[in-house]
Amino acid sequence: MTVRVGVLGATGAVGQRLIQLIDPHPDFELATVTASSDSEGKSYREAAKWRVESPIPADVAEMTVHETDPEDVPSDVDLLFSSLPSSVGEAVEPAFVEAGYVVSSNSSNFRTDDDIPLTIPEVNADHLGLIEVQRDERGWDGALVKNPNCSTITMVPPLAALNDEFGLTDVRVSTLQAVSGAGYSGVTSMEIIDNAIPHIGGEEQKMETESQKLLGEFDGAEVQWHDADVAASCNRIPTLDGHLENVWTDTEADVTPEAAAEAMGEYPSLDLHSSPDQLIKVFEEPDRPQPRMDRMAENGMQVSAGGLRETTDGVQFNCLAHNTLRGAAGASLLNGELLLEEGYL
Amino acid sequence: MTVRVGVLGATGAVGQRLIQLIDPHPDFELATVTASSDSEGKSYREAAKWRVESPIPADVAEMTVHETDPEDVPSDVDLLFSSLPSSVGEAVEPAFVEAGYVVSSNSSNFRTDDDIPLTIPEVNADHLGLIEVQRDERGWDGALVKNPNCSTITMVPPLAALNDEFGLTDVRVSTLQAVSGAGYSGVTSMEIIDNAIPHIGGEEQKMETESQKLLGEFDGAEVQWHDADVAASCNRIPTLDGHLENVWTDTEADVTPEAAAEAMGEYPSLDLHSSPDQLIKVFEEPDRPQPRMDRMAENGMQVSAGGLRETTDGVQFNCLAHNTLRGAAGASLLNGELLLEEGYL
Amino acid sequence: MTVRVGVLGATGAVGQRLIQLIDPHPDFELATVTASSDSEGKSYREAAKWRVESPIPADVAEMTVHETDPEDVPSDVDLLFSSLPSSVGEAVEPAFVEAGYVVSSNSSNFRTDDDIPLTIPEVNADHLGLIEVQRDERGWDGALVKNPNCSTITMVPPLAALNDEFGLTDVRVSTLQAVSGAGYSGVTSMEIIDNAIPHIGGEEQKMETESQKLLGEFDGAEVQWHDADVAASCNRIPTLDGHLENVWTDTEADVTPEAAAEAMGEYPSLDLHSSPDQLIKVFEEPDRPQPRMDRMAENGMQVSAGGLRETTDGVQFNCLAHNTLRGAAGASLLNGELLLEEGYL
Amino acid sequence: MTVRVGVLGATGAVGQRLIQLIDPHPDFELATVTASSDSEGKSYREAAKWRVESPIPADVAEMTVHETDPEDVPSDVDLLFSSLPSSVGEAVEPAFVEAGYVVSSNSSNFRTDDDIPLTIPEVNADHLGLIEVQRDERGWDGALVKNPNCSTITMVPPLAALNDEFGLTDVRVSTLQAVSGAGYSGVTSMEIIDNAIPHIGGEEQKMETESQKLLGEFDGAEVQWHDADVAASCNRIPTLDGHLENVWTDTEADVTPEAAAEAMGEYPSLDLHSSPDQLIKVFEEPDRPQPRMDRMAENGMQVSAGGLRETTDGVQFNCLAHNTLRGAAGASLLNGELLLEEGYL
Repeated sequence: MTVRVGVLGATGAVGQRLIQLIDPHPDFELATVTASSDSEGKSYREAAKWRVESPIPADVAEMTVHETDPEDVPSDVDLLFSSLPSSVGEAVEPAFVEAGYVVSSNSSNFRTDDDIPLTIPEVNADHLGLIEVQRDERGWDGALVKNPNCSTITMVPPLAALNDEFGLTDVRVSTLQAVSGAGYSGVTSMEIIDNAIPHIGGEEQKMETESQKLLGEFDGAEVQWHDADVAASCNRIPTLDGHLENVWTDTEADVTPEAAAEAMGEYPSLDLHSSPDQLIKVFEEPDRPQPRMDRMAENGMQVSAGGLRETTDGVQFNCLAHNTLRGAAGASLLNGELLLEEGYL
Repeated sequence: MTVRVGVLGATGAVGQRLIQLIDPHPDFELATVTASSDSEGKSYREAAKWRVESPIPADVAEMTVHETDPEDVPSDVDLLFSSLPSSVGEAVEPAFVEAGYVVSSNSSNFRTDDDIPLTIPEVNADHLGLIEVQRDERGWDGALVKNPNCSTITMVPPLAALNDEFGLTDVRVSTLQAVSGAGYSGVTSMEIIDNAIPHIGGEEQKMETESQKLLGEFDGAEVQWHDADVAASCNRIPTLDGHLENVWTDTEADVTPEAAAEAMGEYPSLDLHSSPDQLIKVFEEPDRPQPRMDRMAENGMQVSAGGLRETTDGVQFNCLAHNTLRGAAGASLLNGELLLEEGYL
Repeated sequence: MTVRVGVLGATGAVGQRLIQLIDPHPDFELATVTASSDSEGKSYREAAKWRVESPIPADVAEMTVHETDPEDVPSDVDLLFSSLPSSVGEAVEPAFVEAGYVVSSNSSNFRTDDDIPLTIPEVNADHLGLIEVQRDERGWDGALVKNPNCSTITMVPPLAALNDEFGLTDVRVSTLQAVSGAGYSGVTSMEIIDNAIPHIGGEEQKMETESQKLLGEFDGAEVQWHDADVAASCNRIPTLDGHLENVWTDTEADVTPEAAAEAMGEYPSLDLHSSPDQLIKVFEEPDRPQPRMDRMAENGMQVSAGGLRETTDGVQFNCLAHNTLRGAAGASLLNGELLLEEGYL
Repeated sequence: MTVRVGVLGATGAVGQRLIQLIDPHPDFELATVTASSDSEGKSYREAAKWRVESPIPADVAEMTVHETDPEDVPSDVDLLFSSLPSSVGEAVEPAFVEAGYVVSSNSSNFRTDDDIPLTIPEVNADHLGLIEVQRDERGWDGALVKNPNCSTITMVPPLAALNDEFGLTDVRVSTLQAVSGAGYSGVTSMEIIDNAIPHIGGEEQKMETESQKLLGEFDGAEVQWHDADVAASCNRIPTLDGHLENVWTDTEADVTPEAAAEAMGEYPSLDLHSSPDQLIKVFEEPDRPQPRMDRMAENGMQVSAGGLRETTDGVQFNCLAHNTLRGAAGASLLNGELLLEEGYL
């Protein structure tokens, strides 16, 4: 039996990826798509300027786009994926949850709120316990779960592996981020060809705070954020997909590159439909992972790592993930699969 | 009165840039060009596949290329610029210096040898004092001076500014390096379009050791290397020219972004012909410097910085320089100008 | 004595290039800049997101931006350069000319109107005679002169050289156009990295009609359009600046590649300030001209050609010009210089 | 029952694609791989610097690489795919065919020889009849069949569709070719980033002659080459895969864009394993096909067309195919499948 799902903000870049992933999904059946009022009443084909390289799924193409309003979503839909702009998400997501919907959201609003679970299923599935807290405090019937920013998702699985074994105290991360992370029109060609941009507004802060929450301990009532000192520097470069990151970590316990590689490679994945068989692949070749070569590993859901070197107080390494799959649409989908598995639907 | 100079390894990428810079130089007159034995006897036009965007200087085009051998260089040449492959440099540079030539070399061999000055004129001109040491120890008549690797040169001026004021203890640096740093054929298009490569063989080590030597103190006999802990992670990205770097520093004294910016912006330049008026330009805009926008500042000889943020134990910042001008050909030229100014010719 | 000039639409990509070119111009003095009402009252520095690689001229930075309205332009300004969006140009350019201003416009509106001169000074300066016609017919005091589209400008000089000597009957042209031709935000990075777009809306038609008008004969009353059959296919590729074009021509008279090269290389330039010494440089190397290597030839105002080969009924060749210099801002400036030289100011 | 096959020149770019395609093939079983003598005796994993984005097939990785010599190929191998450099192919392919092997070759040598079939299965499968001629004339036991150059393959299917219905008299083609067409190291990043190269040595001639042979009639004894006048202009652009081409055709019969689109869309495919369901997809959107969006259509074996416009004497259109799949490795494979189907193995 499949769950009827909807996509809020279905015409954007992440929304299109969600459509592409949901279409063949064994457990989810797409029942509704919403967008801004400009698109209301149009067919999805008309409303979405389809940019994904595989064709638009035939049955979705003719679906009618609704406004992003709880009254316009069929009541037999159980799960909504949200890829709304954060300002819109902030305004309308609570209305959907009040109306009883379970929402798995990629939008950045509320991510660091105390009672909102921010989850990567393989890392901190237990944070879903916050749903009880949010229902208590907000009187919600549904539930709101967030996935982190794409650049945060890329580094947190290897950081979690190190933290479990060696205890993190200090993280420095420099990112080389793909243009798709800014949406289809976010980066102009004149900005980025033969260039790089050493700042992405708000991104550094997201990496610094979201990672502390993700690595935090949920004690049944609240998440005790991790106290590692995290400092990020975010760069946009001329690649299409795949965020590559250079990370330095200081650890409490002594760590060797070999022990770090083992901790990463053996960090457990889950049995969810979209989880990779191996969560973190560790390359021995020093020049891997590379965005174009490795972003599609395990359907774009694996995190790759490599370049492990010893430093005075820990290890440095590189990591990579597909920013719109593992880092956005796939992340929301995975949270939806976790919500189903854990009985929240 | 001009100094007669030669270029060893004149047909390569850095050699071509040297030719372009020497041609209009007020103090230097190009008297000879050398290359590998394949090119011997050809005109420079034939031997060099000219890649610089301005045309090949007319008088240089018809010069005859000689083998890279002291016997083939006219004795009235006083200064040689070397952009030889390091394995060749290691073999032949000593022969030139023994024969009495002063050599300003961009090749990576010998850079960290005890008696070889490794200099950025605006930063550690006093290290030229090692020339006396090398003459004593090796019985050389000439002199051999090195400039650092292009990625090292980019970060050392701002690091020196911070070190002078606040004392460096710890440096983490992540680089976004242009393809021209690997020479004309060093990076294939299939490797780098829509991609990034998180490792450049030997480059991390060069940054870590060369920066310690450059920031060291010369006591009249030897250079006491700086003991800052430096860890580098080097990446190749799809830009043509200009290395961008993200740097985190821990300092002994307290430092604010404002104080760090002031230290950088006021760090003195020199009056050498190729020195920029201002050595380090500090941007307030958080998304600058960018390679394509800022690499040609002050004829490609200025270092740009920006993105200053406070960290727990210091400041983080970004910096950028043109890798084949400030970082290679211009660096060698500047050392040549310093050698002239200091009376070594 | 300098002419006081203004730029209409000064904050856009072509407007910025115009500012850059006018600032050091010996005959023109920038007196006013206009933009849309959003920018009114702001300093130019605030209103223009400056994208040109050289810094914004200091005196221009503090100029106040006015609305694009004849009443807001000082009456002692004699010449206006227009880089307005064509819909805006269509609405307001006539008002400026009625008010007595001479307008040299890069906007595409009116280009093929019977009484509007469409000129490349070195090719059809005599078409300025249409100014008398437009004054008679429209009762204008000023004058309105247009330059062609950037892709048209690139091929017309070599076509004119061939037409003068051999008579054109048939032209096929395929373009490889740079992203800057679409303005700063015209092409997103997601559209063009690792891609090419085989269509540019309206561009094919502009090339086909504008070239016939440019190559036409002015008989004192009207321009008899050239009757060559011109068919264009326009492509956008991932280059920043410089349009490269492959052209096939059929000619009335027999033509060899050598004779064609001679006709092109000897086609006369003018003595205007911005005209190149040689209008068309013809390369012998079969792989030239190339955008990055040749677009800046003679300050971006030279047209390059190469790849001449004999075909059954004529010759094929490649040509290239800098699309925002020779093809847009420089083209308007050159028309302004011609208007000054010919006494229209 | 599967056919045992080998790949000559298995470590190069096309060889790697062949390995990737043969590995899951239902009718072919990879039995041997050869390369130059440098690689002899190494495992394929060691010898091939694997560049394909999917991992190297596990069983192939451990195969031993042999020298490219008939004596080193097992005698129970029936079919050899050759992606040798053309100079090597010219030297060794005859030896393999004399020794009785059937060779399906992508190498450019012998392509226009009278008794060598040059085939695109869907277009001119009957040219295989030349195998009898070559056996008679050369005394060969095996057979040698060639596929055309990647840029030729892209345009010939749509040209064949037009020729069948309307009769071609004149073809002009301008190409925008991907860097992978030159092999992994064929185009350096310094050559092509922010650039385009308006010439590919030998490519124009290949397109002009190979297309005439492919469109020719086989009369049982020889191929009467088509007499259409074909002129090509070939350009390299910064895309990874997928050749895009602008084509103008003059035809004997009147043709409309609609009739041309119908002829292309209905041009029959074959039932071979690697043939696409539809050989030529015709887009109505004027800005398609695009390399990144359309190169992988039907596993990279479909040809896409679009941009149909009427010209004075025919139609112009754009076409696209994946240059290393439909245009090289897939082309050789398809010829192998045809040879099997037609009983030559």
